Amino acid sequence: MFLPLGFTIYYHEPVMPFIVSIAACLVIGKIMAGKEPENKAIYAKDGFVIVALAWIMMALFGALPFVLSREIPNFVDAFFESASGFTTTGSTIVQDVEILSHGILLWRGFSHWIGGMGILVFVLTFLPNNSQAFYLLSSETTGPQVGKLVSKLKVTARILYGIYTGMTLILIILLYLGKMPLFDAIVHGFSTAGTGGFGVKNASIAFYNSAYIDYVISVGMLLFAINFNLFYFILLGKIIFVLRNEEVKWYLAFVSLATIIIALNISSTFSGQSFRYAFFQVTTIISTTGFATTDFNLWPALSKLILILLMFSGGCAGSTAGGIKVSRIAMLFKSAFQSIKKMISPRMVQTLKFENTQVKRTIIQDVQAYMMVYILVFIVGLSLISLDGFNFETNFTAIASCISNVGPVLGEIGPYGNLNGYSYFSKLVLSFIMLAGRLEIFPMLILFLPHTWKKSY
Amino acid sequence: MFLPLGFTIYYHEPVMPFIVSIAACLVIGKIMAGKEPENKAIYAKDGFVIVALAWIMMALFGALPFVLSREIPNFVDAFFESASGFTTTGSTIVQDVEILSHGILLWRGFSHWIGGMGILVFVLTFLPNNSQAFYLLSSETTGPQVGKLVSKLKVTARILYGIYTGMTLILIILLYLGKMPLFDAIVHGFSTAGTGGFGVKNASIAFYNSAYIDYVISVGMLLFAINFNLFYFILLGKIIFVLRNEEVKWYLAFVSLATIIIALNISSTFSGQSFRYAFFQVTTIISTTGFATTDFNLWPALSKLILILLMFSGGCAGSTAGGIKVSRIAMLFKSAFQSIKKMISPRMVQTLKFENTQVKRTIIQDVQAYMMVYILVFIVGLSLISLDGFNFETNFTAIASCISNVGPVLGEIGPYGNLNGYSYFSKLVLSFIMLAGRLEIFPMLILFLPHTWKKSY
Repeated sequence: MFLPLGFTIYYHEPVMPFIVSIAACLVIGKIMAGKEPENKAIYAKDGFVIVALAWIMMALFGALPFVLSREIPNFVDAFFESASGFTTTGSTIVQDVEILSHGILLWRGFSHWIGGMGILVFVLTFLPNNSQAFYLLSSETTGPQVGKLVSKLKVTARILYGIYTGMTLILIILLYLGKMPLFDAIVHGFSTAGTGGFGVKNASIAFYNSAYIDYVISVGMLLFAINFNLFYFILLGKIIFVLRNEEVKWYLAFVSLATIIIALNISSTFSGQSFRYAFFQVTTIISTTGFATTDFNLWPALSKLILILLMFSGGCAGSTAGGIKVSRIAMLFKSAFQSIKKMISPRMVQTLKFENTQVKRTIIQDVQAYMMVYILVFIVGLSLISLDGFNFETNFTAIASCISNVGPVLGEIGPYGNLNGYSYFSKLVLSFIMLAGRLEIFPMLILFLPHTWKKSY
Repeated sequence: MFLPLGFTIYYHEPVMPFIVSIAACLVIGKIMAGKEPENKAIYAKDGFVIVALAWIMMALFGALPFVLSREIPNFVDAFFESASGFTTTGSTIVQDVEILSHGILLWRGFSHWIGGMGILVFVLTFLPNNSQAFYLLSSETTGPQVGKLVSKLKVTARILYGIYTGMTLILIILLYLGKMPLFDAIVHGFSTAGTGGFGVKNASIAFYNSAYIDYVISVGMLLFAINFNLFYFILLGKIIFVLRNEEVKWYLAFVSLATIIIALNISSTFSGQSFRYAFFQVTTIISTTGFATTDFNLWPALSKLILILLMFSGGCAGSTAGGIKVSRIAMLFKSAFQSIKKMISPRMVQTLKFENTQVKRTIIQDVQAYMMVYILVFIVGLSLISLDGFNFETNFTAIASCISNVGPVLGEIGPYGNLNGYSYFSKLVLSFIMLAGRLEIFPMLILFLPHTWKKSY
C-alpha cells in the first residue's frame, strides 16, 4: 500500500485511507505473528489452507482503502472490488471509474499486478529460505504440474519477479510512447501484466482510439498469458525449449483460430479493422484480462460464443492468466481421444504424452477431478446468483468470467457495464468464485471441508 | 410401419405413403442382405459402427412417410423429425401438429416407443440367437456398464420388451380413464414410455387441463426413466434390490430437490398448483421426455437453470431416458470428492464404491472420457448452429436438449415453439447431435474416425 500512498501524496489527495490501512495491517499482522505455531512443518493440507486463508485476508485488507476513502463506502462492494483486483478478474461494481482518485485507481491496478504472480510468491522473494514452502508455491501457482526453475524456491521466485518487473516496465514505456498519459500507462501496465482488466476510463482501452495502443496491449496480454518459465529460457538463450513447448503451440493455435473466425464473422461491421478488433478481444479474453475496445456483447452469436469458450480456456499454466489453462484442456482431449482409440482396438497399449514426456496417470486423474469440481462449483455459483433475476446468458457468463478471472459479463451487462446490479449476496458469491478460480478451486474447497479440520491423522 | 398403416386405414387416410415406405424398406433391405459378409464375427469396433449406421438408416427410412404424405415435404425437415422421433428427443419442426393426419401422428409417437428401448434390442427379440450380439446391445444400451438379466441376450431382450409393453398398456388405459380420447392416449402412451415428447396438440399436455392426466404422465415419465432391470427384480419379488439401488436414490434425490426448489420459486405465480406444475416440468425434463403443461420459458431464472441442469443429467442408465445419466454423474462426483480427500491425506488408500461394489478404474476412465467427448461434441455443435443468429440461451439449450434427447428449447423458442426457424444446415447438425446423444456419442464418433477404417490390425 506504500505505492498508492506515494501517488496520493504526489496528487495531493487524502493520505489517511492508505495510512490507516497500512497501520491496520501492521498492528493485526504483529498480533497474529505473536503466537508461535507448535509445529512448523507444512504439508499438503496445510499448504492449501494457508494459501486459501492468505488470499481471503488479502482481499479483506485490500478492501480497507476503498472503504476508508469513502470511494466505495459499502464493505461488501469494497471486498468484491478488492477480490476482483487480487484475483486479476477486473469485474467492477464501480459505476463511474473516472471519478475515482489516482491513489485508488493505482491501488486497483497494482492489486492485479501483485495477485497476478501470486501473493505468496511475492512474499517468498523477501522471506528467509524455507524449504517447506513448496506446498505454498504449488497451491498458488497455476496449472496441472509445478516445476522449479532452479533448486532453491526463493531464487526461482526472484527470477520470476525479475522477468515480470522487466516486462511490465517495457510495457509501460511502450504505452507512454504511444501518447498514453503516464499515470494511465502505469495503471494499464500493471493491469495488463497481471492480466486483470481494471482501467482508468469508463470506455476502457477504446477511450484512446489508437491502433498502436490496441496492438501494444494485445501483444502484452498475449505474452503475459504464457508460462513465465519460457521467458527465463529465452533469457538463457534456450530458444529451442520455447519453440518445442506444446502448451504454447496449442495456445497460439487457439488464439489464431479464434481471431480468424471472429475477424471473418464481424468483417461487415468493422470494414478493414476487423482483424484489429478481433485480435484485441481474443487476446483480452483468452489471457483473462478483460479490457475492451468495442462492445462485443453486440457481436453475432458465433463470435460471442467463441469469446465465451476462450473464457473457459484461459491462458497457459504458470502465467498470470486464469481459466482452466490450455495445458489441462490439451491433456483432457488427448486423454479422451486415447480412450476412443482404445475402444476401437482394446489390445493397443497407449501412453499419453504431453510436452514430449509421458504424463503420469495420477496427473490425468487430478486434472479430471479438477474439471468435475470446477463444474460443481460453477453450477452451485450459477444457482445462487440466479436468484437475482438476471437472465441465463448474464448469469452464465458472470460465473464463467469470475471463475476464470476474466472480468466482462455478457447478456444484460456487457463489457462496459458493471456488476453493481447484483445483490450483496450475489456479490459475495461472485467474490468467492473469483478467489476459488484464482487458486484453481481446491484450496478454497479444502478450507471449507469438515474433513480438513479433523485431528485424527 | 404396419401399425401406422393400420391407423390410416381405420381413419380413411391415404395409405400410399406407408405402403410405399414399407415396400422401399423391403426392397432395399433385401438387396443389402444379399451380400453375405466374409467374416461374421462382431467385435467392439464393428458393434459401434453397425449401431451407428443402423440408427442413421432408421432415421432416413423413418423420414419416408413424412415426405411421401407431403405433410413434411422437405426431406431435411422430415429427416430431422424422424431422427427426433427415434432418438426420443421430441423436438419438432412442425408448426401446427393439429393438422397432421392420424397415421403420421401415430408414426411420430411410435418412433419414440421403438427408439426408446433401442432399435437393435427390438430386432434382437425376433432374430435367431446370436452370442456375438453383445457388442450390439452394449453399444446401444445406455449407461456406463451393461448387465445381462439372464445368460441369453435374446431372453434378456424379450423380458425387457415384455415389461416395456405391459407398462405402456397400463399407462394408455390410465390416460383413457382420465377422459383423454383413445387415439391421444395411445400416442401419448408411446411417447411417454419412450420418454420422447411428441404429442398431438400444439399446447402439449396443457391442452387437457387436467390434474389427473398431469400426475399420471408425471409418474409415468418418472418410472420410464428408471433402469428397467429394476422392474424385472420387482416382478421377481426382489424389492430389496430396488430399495438398495444407489442410482435410483440419487435420481429420486435430484427429482425431489428440483421439485421443491422450483415449487417454492414459482409459488407466487401458481397459487396452490405450484407443486403440480413443478413436478410435471421436473419429471418431463429429467426423464428427457419434453412434454409441457406451462410455458416454463417464462419462469424465474433459478427455475429455468434447474431445468437446464436436469437436461444434462437425464434419467437412469438402462432406461428409455437420454442425458448423461444419473449413475455417471454420481460416479464423477464421488471420484472427484475422493481426489480431494486424497489431496488432504495423500497416503490414504481409497476405492470408489458404487452400487455397493468397487468400481473398476477403467470404468471411471471411460466415464471421464465420455464427459470430455460429450463436451467437445457439445461445443462443436453449439458453434455450428450459432451461425444462425439465435441468441446464446437458445443455441445452448437447443444443443443441450438435442444431445440429451429432451426436446424443448428455451430462450427465443420455448416449450410450445418449434425449431423450424433454424437453417437446413443447423437442422442436420441438430439431427446428428440427437443421434450422437442417443447412442452416447462414441458410436457416432467412431463411425467418422479415419482410424476406424484402417485395415492394418
